[in-house]
Amino acid sequence: MKTVGIIAEYNPFHNGHQWQINQARKLSGSDYIICVMSGNFVQRGELAIFDKWKRAEMAVLGGADLILELPVVFSVRSAQYFAAGGVRLLNALGNVSHLCFGTEHPDLNILKRIASAIDDKKTLDTLHSNLQLGQTYAAALSNAIHASHNIPFNILNEPNNILAVEYLRSINKYRATLTPIAVPRRESHYHDTIISGTFASATAVRKSLLSHASTSVQKAIPPSSYDIIEQLITTNRGPASAAKLENIILAKLRTANLIDLEQLPDVSEGLHYKLQKSALNASSVQELLTMVKSKRYTNTRLQRILIHTLLGISQNVLNEFDQTGPLYARVLAFNDRGRAILKEFNKNSALPIITKTTQFLSSISRNTANLNAMQKMLSYDTVATDVYALSLPGSPWTRGGWDFRTSPYYEG
Amino acid sequence: MKTVGIIAEYNPFHNGHQWQINQARKLSGSDYIICVMSGNFVQRGELAIFDKWKRAEMAVLGGADLILELPVVFSVRSAQYFAAGGVRLLNALGNVSHLCFGTEHPDLNILKRIASAIDDKKTLDTLHSNLQLGQTYAAALSNAIHASHNIPFNILNEPNNILAVEYLRSINKYRATLTPIAVPRRESHYHDTIISGTFASATAVRKSLLSHASTSVQKAIPPSSYDIIEQLITTNRGPASAAKLENIILAKLRTANLIDLEQLPDVSEGLHYKLQKSALNASSVQELLTMVKSKRYTNTRLQRILIHTLLGISQNVLNEFDQTGPLYARVLAFNDRGRAILKEFNKNSALPIITKTTQFLSSISRNTANLNAMQKMLSYDTVATDVYALSLPGSPWTRGGWDFRTSPYYEG
Repeated sequence: MKTVGIIAEYNPFHNGHQWQINQARKLSGSDYIICVMSGNFVQRGELAIFDKWKRAEMAVLGGADLILELPVVFSVRSAQYFAAGGVRLLNALGNVSHLCFGTEHPDLNILKRIASAIDDKKTLDTLHSNLQLGQTYAAALSNAIHASHNIPFNILNEPNNILAVEYLRSINKYRATLTPIAVPRRESHYHDTIISGTFASATAVRKSLLSHASTSVQKAIPPSSYDIIEQLITTNRGPASAAKLENIILAKLRTANLIDLEQLPDVSEGLHYKLQKSALNASSVQELLTMVKSKRYTNTRLQRILIHTLLGISQNVLNEFDQTGPLYARVLAFNDRGRAILKEFNKNSALPIITKTTQFLSSISRNTANLNAMQKMLSYDTVATDVYALSLPGSPWTRGGWDFRTSPYYEG
Repeated sequence: MKTVGIIAEYNPFHNGHQWQINQARKLSGSDYIICVMSGNFVQRGELAIFDKWKRAEMAVLGGADLILELPVVFSVRSAQYFAAGGVRLLNALGNVSHLCFGTEHPDLNILKRIASAIDDKKTLDTLHSNLQLGQTYAAALSNAIHASHNIPFNILNEPNNILAVEYLRSINKYRATLTPIAVPRRESHYHDTIISGTFASATAVRKSLLSHASTSVQKAIPPSSYDIIEQLITTNRGPASAAKLENIILAKLRTANLIDLEQLPDVSEGLHYKLQKSALNASSVQELLTMVKSKRYTNTRLQRILIHTLLGISQNVLNEFDQTGPLYARVLAFNDRGRAILKEFNKNSALPIITKTTQFLSSISRNTANLNAMQKMLSYDTVATDVYALSLPGSPWTRGGWDFRTSPYYEG
């Protein structure tokens, strides 16, 4: 049984995602598509525009067979850790043969060369000197790889190339038995904010949705996604509003003990002081970001720190789980082919398959001390949902506890 | 130098308050009025409608000479501890001769009899049995005092009588050298929600303000208060909106460790479980209160617990400060007579007089471990302000750090 894995966010699912799924089927010669998808918080340190179950449902209606959740301790991370989380989860399932990813650069070989080059000593030395010179990490790395391996500068300027390289690095590092398939992206540039045709970036789709430009959205996403999104908006289940969580973040940063702030992921060189001081002076998260932003701490990097603040995730927690990798495969949505994949996984997977959270954790036990590592990782996903719910437009969706009562979506 | 103390909330300052100040002057034969006022959070477990500096300013313009802040570790408390905080602060100043309070019942002697009766063994035994029978605390106490001392039931049904009795108890308990003066309240009933004349309850004034009924408000408050309130609203400095802090409370209750919730003040008999479970099921604080409310845990009692949740104040913290009493006299507003009182205090007060917070605490040092008890108490007042600010209508007022840069109001 050949199964192709895709690591994605589907925020929200659009025509470009559907095209990639079709390409993955064609290029791999496989009928089974399994996606590992970020939950309610995404890689750039933002809230997903719609909740994870509905985004997974859109993906299944758009052609995927099985959607698993990338645990939040991996989803709100820099490319390296995000990729490692996805690759290790797919690999641990035991039956996934391919990993398909979209890239701006069509040549898999050059991406593979970069993936090896990053970890060799010559690159690391040059990278180190470049960082000393005050270059940003991305620039320092591009320059180092160019200097040591004569690879064009601009490749690592593209976010999907970076992710692709990190997938390849993770495959090497964790000796994953996943054959990589690179699919050139059909949608416009990742950061584009305007929909200009049937292939738009998720950023552009979100922007149009939030400005109620439904006609242009309709062009860029499958009809099944459109119907779901319309229903979500009508019933107050979405979109999520980061503004509703701002005061939680500001209050935490203003009042937290400095020692606790220092435990936040990716905080060094006195950033915790700066965060606290700026939170006191800022009247919004946007103002806070403007105050704290630097060459070293970009907006995205800071936003991830703020999400970790919101969810109470420390560097120690991330370190622990970077050691273990994902400890479960949480099912969000599936169809009949997905059900067949799950049956195989139940035989071969090194990880427990979770379709019912309460078999592993309860809403009360998660806040007690005696959790094993797997329960602890899962507890952060459920906490993430219970905070995320507070960002939704209205009742009953602002209630918590979704993870303990929501079944995976099944498309029969 | 005879000085009369008043313990108040001025939420906001209205004609009834002004009348009480005039009566206090007349009945005591003193020219000096010093008020101890709740800060940004008030006794019923609510946000003050306007910030403490502006409420203090209104009080000085309305006839008070000096306004000190009742530290938040005493202000958001049941009558007994609220009263103790106020009485002990006034007494520690060394120069306050009288304590003036409004009551529904005009007879000071009967209030004094109740104050003594509460602490005697016969009452306590009956109180205990009544509580066992499932009576609310207020009912159990009224019945016990009636049974043991033949004092009419209904006196302790009135909130200002209860406070008056608690002031008298505190004067006894802490051997305070304050002569009590009871002033019958001119305003309508404490809980009345409609303004019917020139004397209205603060509840009615707040309600009218929030529904933009400015004509009726204008009747019930002094012109100086009205001008300030108008300016506060025009400049987005008020009124405070509890809704803006709801998500902070819900997120904390949903995600907190149960052990931490159990440390909250006044939490027993598994209330921490119930709070967490209900916070998960509730989509608003109102829903949460409806779920958790019981005969034992009234709305007001629960609201206080929620404010302590918001501010991170535990039972241990309150216990510590109930031992020490107030540890400073923080000045919010004064006039020239107030300045004269302050000069006397500087000679006689057992407590440091704070006019500039930064001389005692900084916004960064407050979140470190090494604070003495006085700094720790003060830090909660500043934390309270920095959270309160997030409830205000707009920038720049939603910024934090007010305590570290706002001077007391001086009416020269």
